[in-house]
Amino acid sequence: MRFLIPLISSSITSGHYRITSRLLSAHLTKPPLSTLHPFFNYQPPSMAASEESLRKALAEKQSAVEAHGNAVRALKAAKATKQEIDAAIEALNSLKLEKSSIEKQLQAAVSGSDGDGALSREAFRQAAVNTLERRLFYIPSFKIYRGVAGLYDYGPPGCAVKSNVLAFWRQHFVLEENMLEVDCPCVTPEVVLKASGHVDKFTDLMVKDEKTGTCYRADHLLKDFCNEKLQKDLTISAEKAAELKHVLATLDDLSAEALGAKIKEYGITAPDTKNPLSDPYPFNLMFQTSIGPSGLSPGYMRPETAQGIFVNFKDLYYYNGNKLPFAAAQIGQAFRNEISPRQGLLRVREFTLAEIEHFVDPEDKSHPKYSQVVDLEFLMFPRDEQMSGQSAKKIRLGDAVSKGTVNNETLGYFIGRVYLFLTRLGIDKDRLRFRQHLANEMAHYAADCWDAEIECSYGWIECVGIADRSAYDLCAHSDKSGVPLVAAEKFSEPREVEKLVIAPVKKELGLAFKGSQKNVVEALEAMNEKEALEMKAALESKGEVEFYVCTLGKNVPIKKNMVSISKEKKKEHQRVFTPSVIEPSFGIGRIIYCLFEHSFYTRPSKAGDEQLNVFRFPPLVAPIKCTVFPLVQNQQYEDIAKVISKSLTTAGISHKIDITGTSIGKRYARTDELGVPFAITVDSTKDVTIRERDSKLQVRVGVEEAALVVKSVTDGLRTWEDVWEKYPHHTSGSADD
Amino acid sequence: MRFLIPLISSSITSGHYRITSRLLSAHLTKPPLSTLHPFFNYQPPSMAASEESLRKALAEKQSAVEAHGNAVRALKAAKATKQEIDAAIEALNSLKLEKSSIEKQLQAAVSGSDGDGALSREAFRQAAVNTLERRLFYIPSFKIYRGVAGLYDYGPPGCAVKSNVLAFWRQHFVLEENMLEVDCPCVTPEVVLKASGHVDKFTDLMVKDEKTGTCYRADHLLKDFCNEKLQKDLTISAEKAAELKHVLATLDDLSAEALGAKIKEYGITAPDTKNPLSDPYPFNLMFQTSIGPSGLSPGYMRPETAQGIFVNFKDLYYYNGNKLPFAAAQIGQAFRNEISPRQGLLRVREFTLAEIEHFVDPEDKSHPKYSQVVDLEFLMFPRDEQMSGQSAKKIRLGDAVSKGTVNNETLGYFIGRVYLFLTRLGIDKDRLRFRQHLANEMAHYAADCWDAEIECSYGWIECVGIADRSAYDLCAHSDKSGVPLVAAEKFSEPREVEKLVIAPVKKELGLAFKGSQKNVVEALEAMNEKEALEMKAALESKGEVEFYVCTLGKNVPIKKNMVSISKEKKKEHQRVFTPSVIEPSFGIGRIIYCLFEHSFYTRPSKAGDEQLNVFRFPPLVAPIKCTVFPLVQNQQYEDIAKVISKSLTTAGISHKIDITGTSIGKRYARTDELGVPFAITVDSTKDVTIRERDSKLQVRVGVEEAALVVKSVTDGLRTWEDVWEKYPHHTSGSADD
Repeated sequence: MRFLIPLISSSITSGHYRITSRLLSAHLTKPPLSTLHPFFNYQPPSMAASEESLRKALAEKQSAVEAHGNAVRALKAAKATKQEIDAAIEALNSLKLEKSSIEKQLQAAVSGSDGDGALSREAFRQAAVNTLERRLFYIPSFKIYRGVAGLYDYGPPGCAVKSNVLAFWRQHFVLEENMLEVDCPCVTPEVVLKASGHVDKFTDLMVKDEKTGTCYRADHLLKDFCNEKLQKDLTISAEKAAELKHVLATLDDLSAEALGAKIKEYGITAPDTKNPLSDPYPFNLMFQTSIGPSGLSPGYMRPETAQGIFVNFKDLYYYNGNKLPFAAAQIGQAFRNEISPRQGLLRVREFTLAEIEHFVDPEDKSHPKYSQVVDLEFLMFPRDEQMSGQSAKKIRLGDAVSKGTVNNETLGYFIGRVYLFLTRLGIDKDRLRFRQHLANEMAHYAADCWDAEIECSYGWIECVGIADRSAYDLCAHSDKSGVPLVAAEKFSEPREVEKLVIAPVKKELGLAFKGSQKNVVEALEAMNEKEALEMKAALESKGEVEFYVCTLGKNVPIKKNMVSISKEKKKEHQRVFTPSVIEPSFGIGRIIYCLFEHSFYTRPSKAGDEQLNVFRFPPLVAPIKCTVFPLVQNQQYEDIAKVISKSLTTAGISHKIDITGTSIGKRYARTDELGVPFAITVDSTKDVTIRERDSKLQVRVGVEEAALVVKSVTDGLRTWEDVWEKYPHHTSGSADD
Repeated sequence: MRFLIPLISSSITSGHYRITSRLLSAHLTKPPLSTLHPFFNYQPPSMAASEESLRKALAEKQSAVEAHGNAVRALKAAKATKQEIDAAIEALNSLKLEKSSIEKQLQAAVSGSDGDGALSREAFRQAAVNTLERRLFYIPSFKIYRGVAGLYDYGPPGCAVKSNVLAFWRQHFVLEENMLEVDCPCVTPEVVLKASGHVDKFTDLMVKDEKTGTCYRADHLLKDFCNEKLQKDLTISAEKAAELKHVLATLDDLSAEALGAKIKEYGITAPDTKNPLSDPYPFNLMFQTSIGPSGLSPGYMRPETAQGIFVNFKDLYYYNGNKLPFAAAQIGQAFRNEISPRQGLLRVREFTLAEIEHFVDPEDKSHPKYSQVVDLEFLMFPRDEQMSGQSAKKIRLGDAVSKGTVNNETLGYFIGRVYLFLTRLGIDKDRLRFRQHLANEMAHYAADCWDAEIECSYGWIECVGIADRSAYDLCAHSDKSGVPLVAAEKFSEPREVEKLVIAPVKKELGLAFKGSQKNVVEALEAMNEKEALEMKAALESKGEVEFYVCTLGKNVPIKKNMVSISKEKKKEHQRVFTPSVIEPSFGIGRIIYCLFEHSFYTRPSKAGDEQLNVFRFPPLVAPIKCTVFPLVQNQQYEDIAKVISKSLTTAGISHKIDITGTSIGKRYARTDELGVPFAITVDSTKDVTIRERDSKLQVRVGVEEAALVVKSVTDGLRTWEDVWEKYPHHTSGSADD
């Protein structure tokens, strides 16, 4: 596995595309490089196989070395001739050399470096993160107090990128789809999160150092152990390696007991002290607090923004004229008190979520704008392909929906919209895939769920979850609050319908479930037709079925004599139902971090003596759209720079003036490192040059026009290509470097 | 005091301006009405006097009634003639009538109603709040669970207004002033808030119902008692009324003991149960939580965003090229666990703050753009005017600064910018004043502090605080973290300076302060020249001075033998100093609530049978800029409406289509109630009408042009007046109502 920092010089590699020629064939307003730069060759399917064969070859070679060593000793013991012995030793040395070469290859295969000077995944990350922290894109919070794990500040450029991402999210989703945006508090009373299930179930398994009390996430310790073993211990057998990989693959499914057993089996101890560890036990990830002065009203910092929307369903439905479908959206902070956060911005204790709850009639999940996304084609990774060990492949969205791979049109529509959103931000489409949840990953109530995963140096990271959660959330809050969160379809005239009548037999249910009888009765009565019909059929054939009771949070066995399900003719004036909800949920910080990695590259300085850092942000997300430089320190030029600056401010274009005496090359390098797409250099009083960041190409534009040219490109009204065609080119050597 | 809901019919009142004629003389992009509509006649200085004279008149009349009653009884006892007695009774009745009339006047004076059918302050608020909650501008959070006091959700239109206000704040401050925006977490470790003083001092005084344990804010109970007495008990003497008013005025200064004494003196009991109350004691207003799983790292939800900026000063200063002045800014949630929140959006437990920290050399507080605000003239309420019982008056900002009323240019610059910000949002400039903090309101370290106060139905509300906090915050964090948060001015060549040398006499200090000696020594050494010189002079004249030690949080007495302050000649290469910070801090929710009240009015429907609600939001903040209606339900018109909708989306103009069959008048009324400034009505296939909300005037515009016309006005590129002049007027009776 090779991880390259994309350099200009690497453009000779077939998989890479020449930076300097890119620009003219690309829209700057739509991220141009995403389609062209698979900078990381991630885990091709052949890789696992080659690692396995290397392990086998290494084991064989090791045996051969041992056998040959024995042979040499035997020769010596048998006082063979010096010639014989020397020949045998030479053969042994040659075997050792071969073994060492296989070791090197295996090492490279597991660590992601080809050992040929190309930078490893970690080195690439280090280079990017160094630049990000040095330029204050983000920094650990409260640094002067030695920080707090899992809390980060966005500094000025990072904050600007975040604003831009959120503004585009609002434009792309809220405005474009006429969603109802709401803004609810982070402080949430316990009753709400009790209903949603978070108080009881939002936990991670934790182990404690038995002597110091230090806490660790149990699955992380096991994961680290397996990875370390796989990467550093080249002597383990291919079988052992396969076992460890299986543990890694099934990590999320392990129960507390199974996790504890594995930790014991592998002899895993506390990383810092090597002390023994406690058994794993659940730790609730919500930050707890107390609302009001009495100490009697427990509250939590919300772990997601969605609940604020669900509890407002009734008002929002009314606001929408009692019509379905409609979507509500919310952008806001969410909090998760991670046990031991790491991976920088990817796992933090406080983060910005942007969530959409699209409410829809469960009997009609079509979407009026579905046709607009039907022909999109991108990497999808359906359940079956994952189970059969295949990899993600390009699929036309329309095919995935029509074949039933994606459950319904509305879910498909949002998958398509998320794809467009991410790629327009600048996410490389070849390192973006939509992975379907496996059956065991999905909540029992979910109809289907897809994660938008983005590949970065940490692997494939879940950045957006798109789930059809059926009626679960509204049902849970209806039950707990006693306020029906339902929708109604009014018929223009009453309909005579043959309807299933569900009649729970309370006596039998009371005998079987005692205190829980009421919950079971309500749940039976709340079944929709399809569920009831399925139960009727199952009871007739099997006599007993398992039945999930929402308010009990578990399955109960229902026998044939406990409920009668029959058909009757009835006149109905309306149909009342609990809407399904389709929920695209965006981890903004994760998207931004992946965007940082996808945008980062280095290129040599003109003198060739150093590597310069560049972020190729599209203008849409670039923290600053433009810099203004007087070529030399000179009052006239500075005055013109100020005039241009003023027009840029008026046009709403964020920019920076740099009037330091530093060389123009250094000033360009500084702004390239912030991902500023355009630089206006004042080198005369009549016209100025505009330089594009990635191509370093420059055009000459009149002073009055400069701000408008930059605005037109950053607003997406025209491309840099259009500008390059229209204006005279600037070729003076004075400019760069 | 009269509180009118501004009606068209009230335009005959001299103070009111005719809604229908307003529009043509006004910029829609700059709130037009703010200068013209003093809808509330708030507490003119004469009012207090008239109340006092009414109380006196009432007391006199009461005495007269009693005296005359006695006279009647005496006549009866003396068996006077029927004629005599009847005449005396008639005179008594006439006195009683006069008394009742005075009572009525006094009642009106204290409750803010003139009793003449004009709506009171409370009734106006009720009308506005009803509309706001019904149309989901904001609603109590978690309503289906009966809500939590002090937590509110912004529904779709409120959320849009909030977004618009924040976007304009970013444009007006961050972009225009090239501020460094940061985004820090809400979860904050204890050490940071210990340094800032919040852990020890961010408290309110609380009393408990001694039987039920219910908590109340002590000052609120006292305030309610005084107000109730003043408003409802017309029998109290003018002297008693003056005493109660004095208590109200000094409420914020009362110590726990003084508050407790007053509560006892007035016999105040728990409002709900009439049980006795505990003595007042401090309650910390921060939401406490625990960071990480160990339970050993206490943390708080930040009570303000400013600390995140202060702890990053070093990095931000470096980012700014080690140059002063510069400003950092942050928008984010803040949390205050109010004891018993009330007053709707004005006092909440979670709210959005937007804060600026402008760092400046304490020896040079000039501002390069000061000249741009120097001629602004608005209501200011300096300390002296408050102390001498005068009211706020219009002052030219430049005069306030040059006379030293406002401490320095930079503070003055921000006051001016805040004025522009608020009035451009739509805050009525006649109900906006800048009030200087009194000496006893200001922290000891503050150089000067002004609040932007906006008048609404709750009185004058502090919405923006603009404080020169000197070096306090950076000093506190330097001390606690050990990381110097300082700036340096490098000299181009070394300067020979006569410098004060501060030499603490450690032996004497050790004797006097023992364990605190180190803190005192450091604080003495950290004095700037001005402070040291003042101390030197004071020690020479008085022999002893009180000296505030930051790290001890208190004053200590310094004697002459404890420190030697002398002058020496030294060569210096740079000057190192702790910058001063000037902090404009915006309570976004309060500004929005006041904006809601200032924008709300009602007008009669055409039929005159009902009052219709309107919010006169300027396009800048209007939640939706435009609605699109087909005049009648008709496929052709609906198709055109969709085409226009698409152009509006492309232009980034938030809008709504209404294709319900409701009458056009009703549809206009619905959107007026949301404050939508423009409505496009499709009544032909060639051109459409555009209607302006407040004037109800309409122009005819071609279908293709419609979106662009609306965009140009909402973007502020032209005014409605321009549009009205350019396009043919539409006068068809079919349109409104």
